[in-house]
Amino acid sequence: MIEENIKPYKGKIDKRERWQLNNHKSVLVWFTGLPGSGKSTISHELEYLLYKNKIRTYVLDGDNVRKGLCKDLGFSAEDRRENLRRVGEVAKLFVDAGILTIASFASPYVSDRKMIREMFENEEFIEVYLKCDISVCEKRDPKGLYKKARNGIIKNFTGVSDPYEPPEKPEIILETDKLTVEQSVKTVFDFLYKRQVLALIEP
Amino acid sequence: MIEENIKPYKGKIDKRERWQLNNHKSVLVWFTGLPGSGKSTISHELEYLLYKNKIRTYVLDGDNVRKGLCKDLGFSAEDRRENLRRVGEVAKLFVDAGILTIASFASPYVSDRKMIREMFENEEFIEVYLKCDISVCEKRDPKGLYKKARNGIIKNFTGVSDPYEPPEKPEIILETDKLTVEQSVKTVFDFLYKRQVLALIEP
Repeated sequence: MIEENIKPYKGKIDKRERWQLNNHKSVLVWFTGLPGSGKSTISHELEYLLYKNKIRTYVLDGDNVRKGLCKDLGFSAEDRRENLRRVGEVAKLFVDAGILTIASFASPYVSDRKMIREMFENEEFIEVYLKCDISVCEKRDPKGLYKKARNGIIKNFTGVSDPYEPPEKPEIILETDKLTVEQSVKTVFDFLYKRQVLALIEP
Repeated sequence: MIEENIKPYKGKIDKRERWQLNNHKSVLVWFTGLPGSGKSTISHELEYLLYKNKIRTYVLDGDNVRKGLCKDLGFSAEDRRENLRRVGEVAKLFVDAGILTIASFASPYVSDRKMIREMFENEEFIEVYLKCDISVCEKRDPKGLYKKARNGIIKNFTGVSDPYEPPEKPEIILETDKLTVEQSVKTVFDFLYKRQVLALIEP
């Protein structure tokens, strides 16, 4: 009896087998941009479009990470980096589990985004820069945060009192002050289609 | 153009919609037990059986968590608790994403496992106690750790120099010193089937 228990297990499933079950691949789509550039809206609309196309997908963002996994962290530069490191590591587990993962974080520093890119294989990390003039972001101000930042109520606010470093070579640039949400979402969807992420069989 | 960008998004997919896409539900199966009680073997064999039944599943264990998400943590009581807290939070995201999640950690303290149980809905957390006499675990000693613990090379080793607190009311008890791996795996599989986790349509 006991002998049977200690034989080596054959159970480990690899990523490719998960892809076969789902009939699509998994990557990490990383949205970066100023507050108000459209990250939440576009990431969730992309999730919805992928879902309608039978793609297993999940959005990691401040809403579900800051209250749980990273609730011990604040907003110092060090804590923000640790927040993004954990998000990167969780995204890695999700991608390994076969989920087309979407991360939606301002992530203003080149070095932090580089750290995450380096966790992944070459084609697995897709950086999407939401390029949007700050005047437009500030006019939208979906959460009233720009106003608070201008009034000094919020310190270290990206774009106002803290820098935003645009990506040098993002896979996709979305000019969200010019495109509609639908156009932005379709651009990312088409990119994933052309990369042959959305099916295991060649399109 | 800009007006169109700021309309509220309808994109959020909930867990039930993910279940519909996968045609099964998602829960967390938490394996606890002494080192050598069979956690790795049984969790990966369960994953394999679920996979063969077209269930989306993923194993969280020391192998994929300690080198990534929790690589900043050591093995003090405090760090071990933080390790398990993060695993619980990640498992919550996985379950929300529709994945039948398996966690495989010695997790020797009742209070730590209670912390994780409380993160989940009532029927979502399934505690599986791998009950195995320590003499059997020590005889197996798959990683040679008991030997090192007895020789004092490893301090604070669960079962030798650190306590293991058995669960008070686990959903499942597997006497892994009496059952074969196949019997153990089937017990958990049958439990999930009866709980109607493995299909959206009643069995």
